[in-house]
Amino acid sequence: MASERLTPLSEDFSSWYNELVYRADLADLSPVRGSMVIRPYGYALWENIQDTLDGMFKASGHENLYFPMLIPVSYFEREKQHVEGFSPELAVVTHAGGKELEEPLAIRPTSETIIGEMYSKWIQSYRDLPLLYNQWCNVMRWELRTRPFLRTTEFLWQEGHTAHAGAEEALEEAFRMVNIYAEFARDHAAIPVVVGEKTEGERFAGALRTFAIEGLMRDARALQCGTSHYMGENFARAFDITFSDEHNRLRYVHTTSWGVSTRLIGAVIMAHGDDQGLIMPPRLAPIQVVVVPIFRGDEPEVSRQVLDEAQGVAQELSAAGVRVKVDTREGLSPGWKFNDWEQKGVPLRIELGPRDLKAGQVVLVERIERGKASLDRSEVAAAVPARLEEFHRELYARAGEFRDAHTFTVDDYPSFRQRVEQGWVYAVHCGRPECEQEIQQDTKATPRCIPFDGPAGEGSCVRCGEPSAYPRRVIFSRAY
Amino acid sequence: MASERLTPLSEDFSSWYNELVYRADLADLSPVRGSMVIRPYGYALWENIQDTLDGMFKASGHENLYFPMLIPVSYFEREKQHVEGFSPELAVVTHAGGKELEEPLAIRPTSETIIGEMYSKWIQSYRDLPLLYNQWCNVMRWELRTRPFLRTTEFLWQEGHTAHAGAEEALEEAFRMVNIYAEFARDHAAIPVVVGEKTEGERFAGALRTFAIEGLMRDARALQCGTSHYMGENFARAFDITFSDEHNRLRYVHTTSWGVSTRLIGAVIMAHGDDQGLIMPPRLAPIQVVVVPIFRGDEPEVSRQVLDEAQGVAQELSAAGVRVKVDTREGLSPGWKFNDWEQKGVPLRIELGPRDLKAGQVVLVERIERGKASLDRSEVAAAVPARLEEFHRELYARAGEFRDAHTFTVDDYPSFRQRVEQGWVYAVHCGRPECEQEIQQDTKATPRCIPFDGPAGEGSCVRCGEPSAYPRRVIFSRAY
Repeated sequence: MASERLTPLSEDFSSWYNELVYRADLADLSPVRGSMVIRPYGYALWENIQDTLDGMFKASGHENLYFPMLIPVSYFEREKQHVEGFSPELAVVTHAGGKELEEPLAIRPTSETIIGEMYSKWIQSYRDLPLLYNQWCNVMRWELRTRPFLRTTEFLWQEGHTAHAGAEEALEEAFRMVNIYAEFARDHAAIPVVVGEKTEGERFAGALRTFAIEGLMRDARALQCGTSHYMGENFARAFDITFSDEHNRLRYVHTTSWGVSTRLIGAVIMAHGDDQGLIMPPRLAPIQVVVVPIFRGDEPEVSRQVLDEAQGVAQELSAAGVRVKVDTREGLSPGWKFNDWEQKGVPLRIELGPRDLKAGQVVLVERIERGKASLDRSEVAAAVPARLEEFHRELYARAGEFRDAHTFTVDDYPSFRQRVEQGWVYAVHCGRPECEQEIQQDTKATPRCIPFDGPAGEGSCVRCGEPSAYPRRVIFSRAY
Repeated sequence: MASERLTPLSEDFSSWYNELVYRADLADLSPVRGSMVIRPYGYALWENIQDTLDGMFKASGHENLYFPMLIPVSYFEREKQHVEGFSPELAVVTHAGGKELEEPLAIRPTSETIIGEMYSKWIQSYRDLPLLYNQWCNVMRWELRTRPFLRTTEFLWQEGHTAHAGAEEALEEAFRMVNIYAEFARDHAAIPVVVGEKTEGERFAGALRTFAIEGLMRDARALQCGTSHYMGENFARAFDITFSDEHNRLRYVHTTSWGVSTRLIGAVIMAHGDDQGLIMPPRLAPIQVVVVPIFRGDEPEVSRQVLDEAQGVAQELSAAGVRVKVDTREGLSPGWKFNDWEQKGVPLRIELGPRDLKAGQVVLVERIERGKASLDRSEVAAAVPARLEEFHRELYARAGEFRDAHTFTVDDYPSFRQRVEQGWVYAVHCGRPECEQEIQQDTKATPRCIPFDGPAGEGSCVRCGEPSAYPRRVIFSRAY
């Protein structure tokens, strides 16, 4: 409960995160190793994330559908890199209906293989292309070290899977989707992500190119928030997905896949939180405004008036499209409630007591600076929606300032080693996997991405001096 | 494809159903036994069902959350009837991450057990009650005989799970939810369901009372479309879910659970379809209106004008809140397209050719009677939404007339045997499970429910002559 002190973020980030997830009612431990229960407050955040992204997917021409969760284990073996990437993490059903199965079935860690099988059936002609499908579902990857939202054996996500007549069109799709993720992160989650391409060592198992959005968390570590992959013909060849083109020639399709998951909840927690707890981006916040009526125990008639006024304020805000809650809980002090809602990250709090009632005003407290201001009662419904939009911009700016203050451009390895402890490092790199591994062993930092609009990358590798492999610098960082 | 003839419903209902599911692009067979792929057209119907029900759940005070899919097998053994009901159908994960698990984990067939475990942790005091939670998810029951949407090993559903301080309040919740299902079926799916209670033999494994909505399909068989269960203290005792009441006494909570699934898609197909294919209830239809432009190949300028006009009509309808699609597919005749959209059950079709363009009109064809009528071009946006509402009422009335024509009240067993071949039979019953079984062996009919508002049930059992067990007559029917 909120009455005990939350470990401050500045003191111990990891404890802060773990405590906050449970204390803010986002999730709970479950009896099954590595999996979690997503509680209503956390799930409502996920529903808002889903609604927003789903609208963006549909507006860009995608349709939803649903594939089976169980996939024959043999399917994974058809794409060589894919099986190497995923087989160590599979959970396998060997018995069902009281009998041993003839072929074991894996719970999907991702659905490329079963989708490949179906696409080979559905696609015959160029007229069937492109296929632009997406699925919202649960997936399972048997991880050894788990943390709520960031890495759990079961998680919720969406996986888009598209098939195209040619490479150019498929690549365009992969770019489009990573850019939609970036737009979502910036405009809804208020996280100023960087968009770029993964190096070979960080690519998805089976992809030719992987694009990603990366956010900087408040412990100066990076979090990959969404990825989009161009598969070329890899899965088309593995699952025989061919089509007759306009000239009646049989060709392989080019496929993409792209996904974001409940990990985005972890991103929201870690990109915005502070010593007091969560700070919810208003456009995704399950509760945008909480109204706390302040009672005096000895004046029941006044308390009733205060409560009526609080409900009236909430009704006006609700009618103005604001997600609002009145905290009518009994037996808890106003101060306790303030802390509780601050810990839960509600962007705006309205306090309303007998004196405010008399003065025809309310007190408005915003979550970032926790500054208080009086607001005329008659202006609440008009002022609050605008104030929420302003809050979004402030939160985005705050995250951007933090990121900029923790981003460094370095040209020599001693600086690299020093700066990578403090955040993101832009460096020239040779692109050799061995060199990446040496850097990781030395500093725990990995190449996050090669940003599309990052600084140019000519010159020699910051670590080994070999020539640069990329036209732009690589972001290195410690990461989740 | 729609070019081949669909087996008429009147000729062979079972073939009609199986063919239609695939030909109308609702679902496809999957490579995994007993499971299906839900294709975009079928999934869009499910999304509309979800959105509607989710709004009704939230309006009645429920919140969504998410529990892990894997449940320790030992949990099922804690409630005696529950394990008997579900253990033959479990799919079990025995290996994960390349190792054998210490305890096998079952894929949830339903989540009472893991939810019971969590509720025992979350509920301490009467102040924590009621808990009104719901989960949308996939579940798995290893069935031997499967049919798309009606019975598949994996299916999608929602499961509500609530905990209450007393029996009366929990029973009220179970009633409330079965009535919400009935409201949904009638007002959105246009299915005139009967609401009633299950007999002992048809109860959920672990429930004290089970309520259900039952619909009559067009082959005169019943389909259970949704259930709501009152568990009493059964799961509370099995999982030790206790609370301190106002007088500081430790008591067990009373729980409920309630669910509907992708089976509702089967209900929509079978309650409304006809020889031509599906008939979609307009409030749930993925496409409410299809606009088919009719071209003449030799006049490209006229064709362009027709297409522009068709797009204009669609834009107006879309702005009026109608889900509309223009069929711009090339190389297909208008007649082929008409058949295709009739098979997919789109409620209204607008045909628009060069002559209509000149006359300033469109042709409106409705799916039930397939009657054609001219409509002034300027009236389309105003007339169509009203026509869709009328369509809903007509479809509901049509299903009601069919049900009434196939519902019989009988007082002797020879009539029972004859009538139960033709539909629903209202009969007095003794309530003995052995007598139910004899009836089933003889006629394949089972007790569907004891309707809340059905005819009185005094007298002696239609089969064995023993005294009636219930205040009302029981509906017997062959069922899915």
